[in-house]
Amino acid sequence: MLFESSLDLDLELHFMDPDPQAPCKDLGASFTVGDINDSTAVRDFASNLDLISIEIERVSVEGLRELEEMGKEVYPSSELIGMVQNKARQKNFFKEHGIPTAPFVTVSGREEMRNSSMKAPFVNKIAVGGYDGRGVFIVKSDAEIEKCFDEPGILEELADIEKEISVVVVRSKSGEISCFPTVEMVFDPVANLVDHLISPAEISREKSEEAEGLSKKLAGQMSLVGVMAVEMFLLKDGKIWVNEVAPRPHNSGHQSIEGNFCSQYDQHLRAILDLPLGSTETILPSAMINILGSQGYEGPPIYSGLEKILDLKGAYVHLYAKKITKPFRKMGHVTVLAKNIEELEKRILFVKEHLKIIA
Amino acid sequence: MLFESSLDLDLELHFMDPDPQAPCKDLGASFTVGDINDSTAVRDFASNLDLISIEIERVSVEGLRELEEMGKEVYPSSELIGMVQNKARQKNFFKEHGIPTAPFVTVSGREEMRNSSMKAPFVNKIAVGGYDGRGVFIVKSDAEIEKCFDEPGILEELADIEKEISVVVVRSKSGEISCFPTVEMVFDPVANLVDHLISPAEISREKSEEAEGLSKKLAGQMSLVGVMAVEMFLLKDGKIWVNEVAPRPHNSGHQSIEGNFCSQYDQHLRAILDLPLGSTETILPSAMINILGSQGYEGPPIYSGLEKILDLKGAYVHLYAKKITKPFRKMGHVTVLAKNIEELEKRILFVKEHLKIIA
Repeated sequence: MLFESSLDLDLELHFMDPDPQAPCKDLGASFTVGDINDSTAVRDFASNLDLISIEIERVSVEGLRELEEMGKEVYPSSELIGMVQNKARQKNFFKEHGIPTAPFVTVSGREEMRNSSMKAPFVNKIAVGGYDGRGVFIVKSDAEIEKCFDEPGILEELADIEKEISVVVVRSKSGEISCFPTVEMVFDPVANLVDHLISPAEISREKSEEAEGLSKKLAGQMSLVGVMAVEMFLLKDGKIWVNEVAPRPHNSGHQSIEGNFCSQYDQHLRAILDLPLGSTETILPSAMINILGSQGYEGPPIYSGLEKILDLKGAYVHLYAKKITKPFRKMGHVTVLAKNIEELEKRILFVKEHLKIIA
Repeated sequence: MLFESSLDLDLELHFMDPDPQAPCKDLGASFTVGDINDSTAVRDFASNLDLISIEIERVSVEGLRELEEMGKEVYPSSELIGMVQNKARQKNFFKEHGIPTAPFVTVSGREEMRNSSMKAPFVNKIAVGGYDGRGVFIVKSDAEIEKCFDEPGILEELADIEKEISVVVVRSKSGEISCFPTVEMVFDPVANLVDHLISPAEISREKSEEAEGLSKKLAGQMSLVGVMAVEMFLLKDGKIWVNEVAPRPHNSGHQSIEGNFCSQYDQHLRAILDLPLGSTETILPSAMINILGSQGYEGPPIYSGLEKILDLKGAYVHLYAKKITKPFRKMGHVTVLAKNIEELEKRILFVKEHLKIIA
């Protein structure tokens, strides 16, 4: 999707991905298969390029730092990526910069957990390598500490969540900051992935503005260049806690392709190229439904029900061209636009009922 | 732009273009440099593909026919392309099918013109090879016949034009027909190219519906598969005459990318793949401004004023990644959206004033 946005700006893009069958393999001026966690591979890939950006934050920080030392532009910076790769460092950043977040302690392993001031129930998250719910364990009683990850991480107070919300914020090299309207995410309880999201969020204007204000503040504090998703909890008592950030185009900004004047991909390119940022205003209320591989199917994907979705007014299908489907793998998404929330909800249900990825 | 739309449907595209530096050279699964007017080259290029379509109608009809004989799907058909390549055949098609068009006679050369019933003033158009105003000559007095093209063509009554309008119509393989709202084209009198267009056209609802009805009728009569632009004259006396058709994605449909629920490119893919057609409804009124190379400049393009346009709300820049600019060469377009026609006109002027292609 970033490549799609780049096409209109006459840019030359080169891609690196560990998977020889990656969806980007036929896109752009060149495609390099390589280990993005290997510093030498990253440095060698980009040593002839002008500007380097990422779409996943699990990438070799050392490789990016070497590129910066060679004088390359790297956005977001290796420093920022290094910080967000570590949940303990990320939480400490929030705390040190006055950003509200769930109270927490950092621990080096189970030994420290047993002696910690944090009492169950709480959440144990590993500092490094967690992803989409992996590396997260909810501790219901102190006895369950023995089931925790015996490695560096954090213990965090359980949030009494009303809604999970997200803001995609963007900051250009010159420091111009803008953000998309707050969106609301509805999770699939089994997959622990976003099932769908609604933009703008159905929350008060005051709370939206608070979330957007926090996100812009963070973008400045982090000297972000590019887009970043700020995932937050809106608590039952009305407080907002920042959960975590992802400094790259994010699932919670997909609907901006059709729902907003400029998409998160357009904005990311504008920000890293130091062009003026575009309008993030909503054109029509939108929803984004993740299309996950159905349980029980693995192999080349079959998009069952696709014609029904193509026949739905205001629906936009985005298939990611992944060669193999697996249970809960993100195979694409559908954005639906509608004039009001009732119509939007109907269209979400229609998509969820009819489109299935089998094999 | 067709490629951009294809990305979301997990399709594999292969391109052929005579220019080794064509904008599509790095797109798709493969790129073949070849003469699209050479039947063998066209046949060889596509003999391993499943489905063949075109973005320019000046292509070898013989090559496409051979592909059809091999059992390939070719949309639009070689028969339709062959017919529209010849203005005399196209005009006869309109006449035979009851489609209103400027009264005309066909001629084989100047000898027949001198003896024709058509009296000056009239327009002489060559049958084959005319493009963007080339091959068209306005005859003001009978003496000027000696300046006409001494080759097969047509003589056509001068139209007393109120507005030039266009409808992009689409018909799928199964015969589903739909069309975009009528748009209005404003020509650059020097370049004889569309300067900008406005969607929907500022004409009466009755006239829009008449234009759209004619276009749908033509799509059926021509057994079109894909999209086709139907260019028409709205006369001062209220009549509509069909001027000519172009059975491919067209300049007069560019604004549909942002201005309508589905774009002409989405629709073209849906039509040729026999998927349900999408909604052509207008999201917001839009205008499309062609970005032509400025007079006096030739060479690698410099997009002067680009930042000002990127800073304009509701403006979308599409650069075509052509390596060389020339006077009046189409180097890209800008679409602007606005809530009303007054705001739209302001934004058109802003784009025309600030964005220049120099070298």
